[in-house]
Amino acid sequence: MSKTKLAFTKKEYIQRVKRVKSIMQQRRIDVLVATDPGNMNWLTGYDGWSFYVHQGVIISLDHEEPIWFGRLMDVNAALLRCYMSKENMIGYPEMYVQNLDEHPMTWIGENVFRKNKWEKCVIATERDNYYYSAEAHFRLTATLPNATFVNANNLVNWVRGKKSAKEIEYMKIAGRITEKIHQRVLDIVRPGIPKSHVVSQIYETAIAGVDGYGGDYPSIVPLLPSGAEASASHITWDDSPFKKNEATFFEISGCYKRYHAPMSRTIYMGKPNQKFLDAEKALQETIDAGLEMAKPGNTTADIANAAQKVMNKYGIDRNNARYGYPIGVSYPPDWGERTCSLRSTDLTVLEPGMTFHFMPGIWQEDWGVEITESIHITKDGVETFCNFPRQLFLK
Amino acid sequence: MSKTKLAFTKKEYIQRVKRVKSIMQQRRIDVLVATDPGNMNWLTGYDGWSFYVHQGVIISLDHEEPIWFGRLMDVNAALLRCYMSKENMIGYPEMYVQNLDEHPMTWIGENVFRKNKWEKCVIATERDNYYYSAEAHFRLTATLPNATFVNANNLVNWVRGKKSAKEIEYMKIAGRITEKIHQRVLDIVRPGIPKSHVVSQIYETAIAGVDGYGGDYPSIVPLLPSGAEASASHITWDDSPFKKNEATFFEISGCYKRYHAPMSRTIYMGKPNQKFLDAEKALQETIDAGLEMAKPGNTTADIANAAQKVMNKYGIDRNNARYGYPIGVSYPPDWGERTCSLRSTDLTVLEPGMTFHFMPGIWQEDWGVEITESIHITKDGVETFCNFPRQLFLK
Repeated sequence: MSKTKLAFTKKEYIQRVKRVKSIMQQRRIDVLVATDPGNMNWLTGYDGWSFYVHQGVIISLDHEEPIWFGRLMDVNAALLRCYMSKENMIGYPEMYVQNLDEHPMTWIGENVFRKNKWEKCVIATERDNYYYSAEAHFRLTATLPNATFVNANNLVNWVRGKKSAKEIEYMKIAGRITEKIHQRVLDIVRPGIPKSHVVSQIYETAIAGVDGYGGDYPSIVPLLPSGAEASASHITWDDSPFKKNEATFFEISGCYKRYHAPMSRTIYMGKPNQKFLDAEKALQETIDAGLEMAKPGNTTADIANAAQKVMNKYGIDRNNARYGYPIGVSYPPDWGERTCSLRSTDLTVLEPGMTFHFMPGIWQEDWGVEITESIHITKDGVETFCNFPRQLFLK
Repeated sequence: MSKTKLAFTKKEYIQRVKRVKSIMQQRRIDVLVATDPGNMNWLTGYDGWSFYVHQGVIISLDHEEPIWFGRLMDVNAALLRCYMSKENMIGYPEMYVQNLDEHPMTWIGENVFRKNKWEKCVIATERDNYYYSAEAHFRLTATLPNATFVNANNLVNWVRGKKSAKEIEYMKIAGRITEKIHQRVLDIVRPGIPKSHVVSQIYETAIAGVDGYGGDYPSIVPLLPSGAEASASHITWDDSPFKKNEATFFEISGCYKRYHAPMSRTIYMGKPNQKFLDAEKALQETIDAGLEMAKPGNTTADIANAAQKVMNKYGIDRNNARYGYPIGVSYPPDWGERTCSLRSTDLTVLEPGMTFHFMPGIWQEDWGVEITESIHITKDGVETFCNFPRQLFLK
């Protein structure tokens, strides 16, 4: 019996690879190297905390299955998580791991690309991916002086945009975990409690999961800045206590099989002044206006413009920050898909199965408020992944 | 009153920058761009989950303070976490965030490098860092056609090698958190319990912290593969239950102010056969032999060779995997420093203040065992950051 655990049917992976190959053909790409761990997972099933060493998945028009490559030690993980046959999993020797002189991509160039006679091919890499360093590119190209290298950043990410029924199912489970985490926060948070204590309960709830579905690690840690720190939306917690008369927003996602459904809510401890109540109202109206426009045939810009109109009415300047981004399968450091954005200049047409984190947060010089929703474009309109009161909470 | 929270004195940051500048002078580097978030933190205090967009710290010989650059929204985080004055924090407009056409590094080249008249300088970048993509390099170099670009991968990491008294203090707190996590695991783990439940308790303990010190997120998630999956050391958990007659190793680190002290222990559920008992003995002897050689004046190779000698005696083939790596301040995806390795070919001389994760794990085709220690080279020899029975645990 195979010990391989797949999150989707083999058929679904094969269809995904076919869709990517068809785009490659259109764009005259012979060989594609995917180093984004989310793309590796989506194409092959691969899942492991091994992206701190060089690794990737190669799709070639002249090769039926994807080829996984990575560190020799991680071939075992590929065997246990990928749908392909063993000969399509290639490990470079352990001596190349974080070796200062000999680089894994040199070995891969010589032992995979040349061996497959891809020396004169058009080879596409994900040039702006976290896990494709400048050095990786130099080393790979140096082994293949006669190949033509092109940038296919986000090629796979774009194909991932429309989710399958099973992907939506996983995101719904993630959404239920997200709801449960927010409820836990609301139950325990109060002035005087160290932030680290609340985060310990957030993680406990997130990983314990819901209804027998154990949680996975989210691609972004819980963000819960308070007061002036809420102006800096990516500051992480420490062990200082929550204070009275401060707002804290909780930007948090449950995660199931690497799929996310983030949602933010803001809690004010004490009696908020008018600016917070106005912000609450502005955000509620913004979300209503955006959801109204979120349906097949409309564009990402339609959502952003509807949201911006409400912000203008309230006189709120967001420094041109976008209103959200697509979400799905992902790995640290980001749960976004990095393709389109909910931005007035972005004219991506919405289709059923697309999923976004719609986040009209307000970040001002010394305070911030977030009320956000993860959304799913359906055949007829839109649904949110979470069902949680859309308000500023007071404690 | 300043709202800036620094983990170290301003004096300590200034000394660090001076040490880096002195190496830059030796290597004839005018300007250094550090994109490793651990290096950014170590040089300036910057701390935030913002490394999913392009950012960095620039050290220039003609500029006293480091210059932080990042997304406009994150300037607020820099103000709250960095020691420099405000004019040395530069944010690029929000429209550059994950924009598919306009790249932040083009903006930085034009608005920081050119404005400072660095067009003809020798500019060093961390070319093999996760957060310095091939595209970032292309965009930056394109704006500065007359500059000379060199690779200074790990330049800062090497300077970080010898820890200050305060850094050691933080690592000791991390070590106490690590001990507490392992004790919690031992208390609750048993056949039938879902792995995700145990991980939820690991996180709860890790972030709650110890003795009033709240925990931070570790740079690698808890790894706890069982049975055949323990051959694949980087597979993460799911919600399947622990089984009888399987070994699980727990590779886990507490984290305090981004400093780590990882440690692994293995738990066998049931009655282990001889190979596990032999592995336990081999690992105990290996650690003893390695610690014996871990003292100032000896080399990293001395530790690796002593360890290898024991492995040879037991006839264990580790596929030339290294015996460990330096540790300290870091961010996902890695808690290692990526400079030297505990490897027979690595001749780094040990000095007081150096810190390593010494990990003589054994990964075989269908099983694995890890017993490891985080160590601190002292004036006279070595100490471990954790104090926890060094054995194979049975449940």
